[in-house]
Formats: sequence, structure tokens, C-alpha cells
Amino acid sequence: MPGVEGGVLFPADKLRAFTVAVFEKVGVSPEDAAVVTDSLIEANLRGVDTHGITRMLCVYIKRLQVGVMSPRTEWSIARENASTALIDAKNSLGQVVATRAMQLAISKAKQTGIGFTAVNHANHYGAAAYYSMMALEHDMIGFSSTNAPAGVAPWGGRQPILGTNPFSYALPAGEEEPVVLDMATTVVARGRLLLYAKQNLPLEPGWALDERGVPTTDPQTALRGILAPLGGYKGYGLALIVDLLCGVMTGANYGGHFPGFLADNLEEPSDIGSVFMAINVNSFMDTAEFKGRMDQAVREIKGSALAEGATRIYVPGEIEFETKAERLAHGIPVPEQVVKDFVALGQELAVPFPRLD
Amino acid sequence: MPGVEGGVLFPADKLRAFTVAVFEKVGVSPEDAAVVTDSLIEANLRGVDTHGITRMLCVYIKRLQVGVMSPRTEWSIARENASTALIDAKNSLGQVVATRAMQLAISKAKQTGIGFTAVNHANHYGAAAYYSMMALEHDMIGFSSTNAPAGVAPWGGRQPILGTNPFSYALPAGEEEPVVLDMATTVVARGRLLLYAKQNLPLEPGWALDERGVPTTDPQTALRGILAPLGGYKGYGLALIVDLLCGVMTGANYGGHFPGFLADNLEEPSDIGSVFMAINVNSFMDTAEFKGRMDQAVREIKGSALAEGATRIYVPGEIEFETKAERLAHGIPVPEQVVKDFVALGQELAVPFPRLD
Repeated sequence: MPGVEGGVLFPADKLRAFTVAVFEKVGVSPEDAAVVTDSLIEANLRGVDTHGITRMLCVYIKRLQVGVMSPRTEWSIARENASTALIDAKNSLGQVVATRAMQLAISKAKQTGIGFTAVNHANHYGAAAYYSMMALEHDMIGFSSTNAPAGVAPWGGRQPILGTNPFSYALPAGEEEPVVLDMATTVVARGRLLLYAKQNLPLEPGWALDERGVPTTDPQTALRGILAPLGGYKGYGLALIVDLLCGVMTGANYGGHFPGFLADNLEEPSDIGSVFMAINVNSFMDTAEFKGRMDQAVREIKGSALAEGATRIYVPGEIEFETKAERLAHGIPVPEQVVKDFVALGQELAVPFPRLD
Repeated sequence: MPGVEGGVLFPADKLRAFTVAVFEKVGVSPEDAAVVTDSLIEANLRGVDTHGITRMLCVYIKRLQVGVMSPRTEWSIARENASTALIDAKNSLGQVVATRAMQLAISKAKQTGIGFTAVNHANHYGAAAYYSMMALEHDMIGFSSTNAPAGVAPWGGRQPILGTNPFSYALPAGEEEPVVLDMATTVVARGRLLLYAKQNLPLEPGWALDERGVPTTDPQTALRGILAPLGGYKGYGLALIVDLLCGVMTGANYGGHFPGFLADNLEEPSDIGSVFMAINVNSFMDTAEFKGRMDQAVREIKGSALAEGATRIYVPGEIEFETKAERLAHGIPVPEQVVKDFVALGQELAVPFPRLD
């Protein structure tokens, strides 16, 4: 079997077929199974394995099996205006409703120049960039953001009361790849602390706080503590704005009101909130001119003088596009333990996990 | 004369009257002089002295006097849709066109749920929060962002090709003060480096890079180098998105294309770009319910457990509201040197700078 460090390489189409079949087995319609699978596989292809099947598939299936997440997509538009809509996700699969919410934003932007939709009573929707990037093929600028259960303290505090609250912008270019920013509002993800703890390496200053809310560079102490917001009080401000828009404004959970997340709570719905925006480029500039200017801007950035010791300047999203090309050609790495989990899941649901021959 | 550290306290109304009169003397209409003055005085009241008359008045007047900025407000709507508009500021006063652009966004949001306007060929508009906060009295959520001449390098680079590119969100609350985030996408402002250099104190890690693009904590070295983006590559990504929206999409200057800024270049127009957004809360939730949830969210944050050594948790904007109350009661501090500049400016334009008796 072809392998990489800590993983076995599988062709994306084999993982996709397996994932669709597994979702169908627990009551998800073929159409919806295809949508949620595409979001998860796309995250793996782009190297965002934390939001791919490698981390999410078994968790999602478990939540569907115990009934804390609904396999059937039922949603309704609770409020609507020419350029806005509030959608009640009714505890359906996060990706399925998020995809429809972004489609609705795009369709409104075609009519009025901009569309902004919000979703409440939703589940984890995967990677934010999946939705912002939906705008690209329509020559629009896409945006999406979601709140999440708390793991970050406000500046000056030590109580986790804000999520990592990520957001993503995607802007189309011409000959260059689109610019796609997808970032959490913490300095690093919790996974990075785990990695440093495993290797017994000190953290960089500013990454995390201990249980008393005091900065620490000890990875074990940090794991018992909280993630630091990006750049201190500014990242706290960003995380709060995301929570107010996605949670408070939509009527979903916010702040410290979330039950445990994903596998941590299998009894209560997540009731996450998210927002989606599409800006029609043509409302401001002819699309061809915009794309030409985007190409020039990207080239100027990438061609600017390097810092000492740096070998290349990336624009946001560039690493993910390169990873996708690489993984489409050579496969998606699945850690050995996750392969075992998938084999077991496949046996349980009578969907054999693909063999690599 | 009542004084504070490094400044003399002047009542806001005296400074306001002087500022309006000075603008009128160089050809600005009474209405427009009132608008630009209100933006500048409001920044001083809120403690954002970098965007108040204390830093900007002499510079703006100089630019108007030499003709590199137009005293007459001429603007036109270049493109318009139900929820969007592109406005050509025609080198008018930044604050005057920005105010109209935000008013237009608010008026569109009343009709369609959201309004998004963009401005090109503009001048420095002062503090971003002035515009986002215009949405509050309409029970809307406001947003504004602007690009600015380059002073920040991309991640991995050493060439200043991005501005500090700030943005602001303002959300109305009920009994609590609104939440108002207004932040640049650098860790600290250049003024902070100057302050540390003056006191010969080492900078905190992550604030700045030297001329080679290597992190430094020496303030003198940092002043010859560049400001670090907030949280490394994430802040670089944010600054880039702001520049692409405000500069590339609007047809204004972007990246490294700016001539010198404010007093640094008195020959070429700035051609700055900005964007403005208003979201009608009522499109998503009854306003009273939203404000109640905002109050609760703010109280939960402020009442959460303190970090060791911290005395209070602030929400974004809270310090500025308190500063405004304080300065309305006791006056706006004007540094001695700036008082001298204002006295000289008043003599030149036959508008006596107010005496404190």
C-alpha cells in the first residue's frame, strides 16, 4: 500500500464512494449524502484533514445513529427579504443546509448585487471555505462564518466562552488561482498543542494560556488551559463579532451555551449558527477587469522581496490548491488508526471499506 | 489651564467650532465642514487621537491648501443595484463621501435587508468606527473598512506592500453599550513603536520586523523596518482581503501603488478605496429580541471568570465609550506642541484658536 508519514494514501474517488454509501446506510438521501461527502472529501483534498472524513465521518455517523442529528434535510425560511434570508436548519446535516444557504445568497446577489443569509439550529458545517468558494464560479466574492462551542476566553478572562469561530473569504482571479482565506480566530488550533505535547516541544509565546488565564509555553499546561485568541484582544474581538452575528443574531446557541461538541455530547443538538454572503463583482466592476486586477495584485504580492530565510510568499489558499493537485494525483493520506475505524464502520454498516490492491 | 500628561484639556465644543471655521476658510462648505469636523472630534472624544484633529487637522488643511485634495464635495454613483453602489469620490474630503456612502448603505438595507457600498478615488476617512456606528441608530449592524498606503509586508516578505487596512463592526445592544470593534490588521500601530523607542524599552515579540523581514524587539531597528501583521500569516491574509475589497474591487489604489500618505506626498491624490455595509437586524430577528440577546451576551462575557492578574473584562468599544464620557465632562487633551500648531494655523487663517480662561 502506498503510504505517507502517518497515513495510507487512498484515491479520492474510493473514499468518496465509501462515504456516500455510509451516509445512505444511516438514512441520508443520495442527494444529501453526495453533498456532505463532497464537503468532507474536498477538505481532505485541500489538506484540511481536521474537517475531512478523517476526523468527522465516524462522529457524524454516530450522531445520526443516536438521533441527535437528523438524517433528513428539513429546513424552512423563517424570514426573507430581497437580499437576505434566515433559514431554520431544523437540526439537519450542517453541510446540506449550508450549501443551500450559500446558493440562496448567490441567487439573491444576482438580483440585487449582494446576498446575505443566516442559518440557525444547525450542525457542524465543515470547512468555511467550502461555502465561500461556491461564489467563485458565479464570478462573485464569497464569505462564510460559523460559531462553535466555547474553547477560548475573552481577553482578560480565563473562562472559555467563545469558539474558535472561523470565517472564510474567497475572491475570483483570472489566470491566477482564487484568493481563499479560511482562518480560525485563535493563533493555532488545539491539534497543534497536541502535536507539540507529543514531541515535548515548548510552544511559541502567545499560543495558549493556562487554567488561570496566564500565558504559557508548556504544551501540557496549555492543553489543560485555553487557546489564545489571535493577536490578543483583537482576536478576541473578532471571535466575539463572529459569535454575535452567527449565534446571537440568528437565534442559535452562542457563547457558553453550547452543549458538548461533536462526539462530546450525544444527547443534545448542537444548534450552531452560520452566515453566508455573496457579493456580485459585476456590481462594482466589469468582471474581466476585476480578474485582471486580481491577477496583478496576486503577482505583485508573490513577486515582492523575500524576508531573510524565506523561500516563497504564498497568497491565502495557494497551499490548499497545491495540496489538492497533489492529493488528486497521489491520494488522500488516511492515518492507520482512522483506516481501522473506517474498516470497523464499514463492517458495522455492511459497506466494505475499499481495499488498495 | 487644566492639563493632563502631555496635553492641555479643551472642551469639545471649542475645538469643534475652531475646526469647522478652519475648514470653511479653505473653501469647504459649512455642511461639509461640520461633517468632517464631527468625525475628527468624535475620534478625539473616543480616545482615538491618531484619527482626531490632534493628528489630522493641520495635514488635511495643508492638502486642501496645496490643492491635492478637493475642498468641494463632488461625487457620483458609478454603478448601482438594489443593494449595492459604487461611488466615485472624485478626490473630495474622505469623511464627507464616506458618510454619504454609509447613509446609502443604510437606506438600501431598509429596503432589501442589507446594503453594501464602495467608494473609490477617495481620501483618508478617519476612524472606521465612525461609519459602522452610523448604523446603530437605525437598529442595524454596521461595517466599514478602508485600505491605506503600504507599511506591512506579506508573510514571508520584507517589502511593505499592504496597509494597516483597518475595519470596524458595530452592533446595537439594549441597555448595554453597543459592541464596536475597530482594529487595524497589524499587531500594534507605528505610534506604539515610537513610544517604546522614546523610552528605550524592548518591544514585545511579534510586534515588528527589521528591514530584512526578521522579527525584532529593538524599537529603533523596528522603526527602520516594518510592522508585523496581526498573528502572522492570518493578519497578512486579513490585510490582503481588505485591500482586495477596498482597492482592487473598487478601482482605487491598492498594494504598493499608493503615493506617499497624508503629509508625505502633497502632489498626488491618495485614491484610497473603502467599503461600507449595513445589515438590518429586523431581517433576521425582532429588534427588541436581538437587543435583549446582545445585552445577555455582553453581560455573560463581562461577568465571566477573570484571568489571574486581570481586573476587568472589556467588550470591544467599551473603553472608547468610557473615554468619551470622561472627555465630554473634562475636555479633550491636546498636546502642547499641537496647541502651538493650532495657534499658528489660526493666525494664518484668521481664525483665533480658543483661549482657555
